[in-house]
Amino acid sequence: MQESASKKAGRDSALALAGSLFARLREGCAADWQAYTRHAFVRRLGDGSLPQACFRHYLVQDYIFLKHFARAYALAVFKSEAIEDMRQSAATLDALLNAEMSLHVRLCDGWGLSEAEMLATPEHPANMAYTRFVLERGLSGDLLDLLVALAPCVAGYAEIGLWLNADPQTRLDGNPYRDWIETYGGGDYLTVARAAVAQLDRAAGHRTGGDPASSARWPSLQLTFSSATRLEVGFWDMGLAPREP
Amino acid sequence: MQESASKKAGRDSALALAGSLFARLREGCAADWQAYTRHAFVRRLGDGSLPQACFRHYLVQDYIFLKHFARAYALAVFKSEAIEDMRQSAATLDALLNAEMSLHVRLCDGWGLSEAEMLATPEHPANMAYTRFVLERGLSGDLLDLLVALAPCVAGYAEIGLWLNADPQTRLDGNPYRDWIETYGGGDYLTVARAAVAQLDRAAGHRTGGDPASSARWPSLQLTFSSATRLEVGFWDMGLAPREP
Amino acid sequence: MQESASKKAGRDSALALAGSLFARLREGCAADWQAYTRHAFVRRLGDGSLPQACFRHYLVQDYIFLKHFARAYALAVFKSEAIEDMRQSAATLDALLNAEMSLHVRLCDGWGLSEAEMLATPEHPANMAYTRFVLERGLSGDLLDLLVALAPCVAGYAEIGLWLNADPQTRLDGNPYRDWIETYGGGDYLTVARAAVAQLDRAAGHRTGGDPASSARWPSLQLTFSSATRLEVGFWDMGLAPREP
Amino acid sequence: MQESASKKAGRDSALALAGSLFARLREGCAADWQAYTRHAFVRRLGDGSLPQACFRHYLVQDYIFLKHFARAYALAVFKSEAIEDMRQSAATLDALLNAEMSLHVRLCDGWGLSEAEMLATPEHPANMAYTRFVLERGLSGDLLDLLVALAPCVAGYAEIGLWLNADPQTRLDGNPYRDWIETYGGGDYLTVARAAVAQLDRAAGHRTGGDPASSARWPSLQLTFSSATRLEVGFWDMGLAPREP
Repeated sequence: MQESASKKAGRDSALALAGSLFARLREGCAADWQAYTRHAFVRRLGDGSLPQACFRHYLVQDYIFLKHFARAYALAVFKSEAIEDMRQSAATLDALLNAEMSLHVRLCDGWGLSEAEMLATPEHPANMAYTRFVLERGLSGDLLDLLVALAPCVAGYAEIGLWLNADPQTRLDGNPYRDWIETYGGGDYLTVARAAVAQLDRAAGHRTGGDPASSARWPSLQLTFSSATRLEVGFWDMGLAPREP
Repeated sequence: MQESASKKAGRDSALALAGSLFARLREGCAADWQAYTRHAFVRRLGDGSLPQACFRHYLVQDYIFLKHFARAYALAVFKSEAIEDMRQSAATLDALLNAEMSLHVRLCDGWGLSEAEMLATPEHPANMAYTRFVLERGLSGDLLDLLVALAPCVAGYAEIGLWLNADPQTRLDGNPYRDWIETYGGGDYLTVARAAVAQLDRAAGHRTGGDPASSARWPSLQLTFSSATRLEVGFWDMGLAPREP
Repeated sequence: MQESASKKAGRDSALALAGSLFARLREGCAADWQAYTRHAFVRRLGDGSLPQACFRHYLVQDYIFLKHFARAYALAVFKSEAIEDMRQSAATLDALLNAEMSLHVRLCDGWGLSEAEMLATPEHPANMAYTRFVLERGLSGDLLDLLVALAPCVAGYAEIGLWLNADPQTRLDGNPYRDWIETYGGGDYLTVARAAVAQLDRAAGHRTGGDPASSARWPSLQLTFSSATRLEVGFWDMGLAPREP
Repeated sequence: MQESASKKAGRDSALALAGSLFARLREGCAADWQAYTRHAFVRRLGDGSLPQACFRHYLVQDYIFLKHFARAYALAVFKSEAIEDMRQSAATLDALLNAEMSLHVRLCDGWGLSEAEMLATPEHPANMAYTRFVLERGLSGDLLDLLVALAPCVAGYAEIGLWLNADPQTRLDGNPYRDWIETYGGGDYLTVARAAVAQLDRAAGHRTGGDPASSARWPSLQLTFSSATRLEVGFWDMGLAPREP
């Protein structure tokens, strides 16, 4: 399906992307970005055709993923120089640990998955590759490197949610994944994603100045973003193949 | 002044120290611990004789200190393996960033110190020595090393507050430092300190087993605790000498 | 093929494993260890039947792997408390950066692969999963956690080399992978592996005392070792599937 | 003493400073830099009037300092993206661990100080402040932040050595500190310092582009350099006051 330019512009505007570093990085790996945000896993969430075993497999790994993402935001607090930046990352950490992970536990409970079961499941290599890549990028680089590695997940999920909500193939009635679609396509999550897009621009302002794409760090930043995007593709691939790792 | 054994036991009981790792570490550097918790700066807070310039100097450096302590708790979140441990350190981070630092700004405001002024003040070497020692210990070691480095501050301030409240030399009426004494000698702070003492024991349970003092790591843990205690002494010394660094 | 107990004992003795932490960790994940050290990739190196495209694919990824392994040994230097430990990890770092990587470049050159080509190849997710897991384990844990994460590679390759040298299925004459077999089955590499096994025991002595398997950290240490072993299996799997990542 | 502009230009030229980031950072904290490189401790090394107890005190703390500086270069290896950068920092690490520390042990031996004695001496707070500041800066920031924090020591000692060699107040005959002066004023050390100045420029090229002083990071980089310079002043102050910490 080829969507119209005006619909795409509407989503970009909803995410407040115009001129953002996130928009520029996304354009720099357009094919990978498309493979991630329009992945078969996503489409089959939208039309409800995803096998439930795939979704359960994804949910369990995503719980482990969230734990490491929370750790990455803790690292962002540590790596901040300004108190304002510390506060923003600490708020995200709090939201992940105390809201999103609890929501996740309730969601999984509805699918018959207990928290103990999730924590006892071995971590899939695709999960390890992504989470450890992000954490290590944050430790070997600076705050900007870390936030760039985090961006494909945080802002990408909002883009996926907005797209699914707008896509004529999406079916909400009777869709077992309706909660998921409405969460990531909803206003609360959009607020989270816009804050992340803005935080990335602010960090770039401190670390590269106003035009990151023309800075000496650009190739390295783009590589980090593109790598994280491909690791998101691997995460969806894992979701479609619910075998033991 | 020689206080009675029963008073000391009452304070230990208030801090829930019996058998704790914190109690054992404190005994392992008794002279340094006494030098820290009974420092002239502390005594002169208690009787109100501390020159106000000293207190202002301390307040400004303590604000910078709190920022780095918040970063250390963020690091503790990153270094945690269990979600329960992540949540506890994230709660302390939140309390530091969003309650204690705001309280501090209000307290300083009462002393005519603006937040901008505090952030523009050069960090004193005694402050750098202490905060960077703690952070680096956390990065080169594990979660237990980090929590041991943090303990003299968190639990020591409660002990100082309890002692000042009990000490006959303490004068609250008309004491310009009454707020400070009542904050650290009060029930809310005691709750914070008891939680830190318990967290330290739990981390030791995971990393050394039930008897840390007989583990192979003991000399290293004691050295970390003793070093941090001496750096607290240096922090009070700095408070008494309100020159530019 | 079922090999005799005496042959196995000979290899263990060559690696100086009796009573070592490495031996104990290896036993704790025997099936994973077998899957790694007797992997089809290894067997086909031994009998020379491995497609050359697989070996080239492996060589390129292994070059990227070595770079991150060198970084992990640099991290081990940073995380050491004793100068002797710093010196041992620095020697391994030097060997990796200045001997093994140069050897690798020459070996690859013989297979028509230039260093520039290798550095321009995208890193495979299986490679990222393994290397970043090791580095992150080293940053979130202590020196012992890091050395445990490194052990399956360092000591496992020696075990593989010794086994291939002893295996009747191995064919050296005309085997295009003879250099590889003789390198990892040779005395120089055995010396490297024995030093790593001994370093691991020394670090455990400092961090858990003389009986790590009965320490509170054992489940976590075993999980790190088992995870790294499974990531080695994933690395061989990648070698057998020489597609673009 | 007011030295001539031509002498100063000669030293700058020896250090290859023209247009370097190091030269620019040094100018940005000229008074602190003067306080460090022309400190009374330095002058009294030059004319031989420094009390020997001061020098012994300095030597012992400097041994502990070198250990942590070696750890900082290990961290620089970990934080490097390019193999060339890894190799340069690994070479410095090797030089520190295997040449400079051994030289130091021999030098101390001549002053009746054993390595065991040095390692048993408590680390002075001025030492902790400096070394932990550098290490923590490297962990919270990126490779450039770390190299900027290291620069005042590496390049400053060469400048001090060159200045002492040129200063008419310096007396070499019968000066008990002659070895020290000739080491840091000699060609071998100059080569080390020039390499560090060049490495800093290369890292800045990767992380800020060709004109770091006009980059958004400049205030933060200058603050790191100025802070490290003041911590060097504190290190000399410590040397002049050979009491127990």
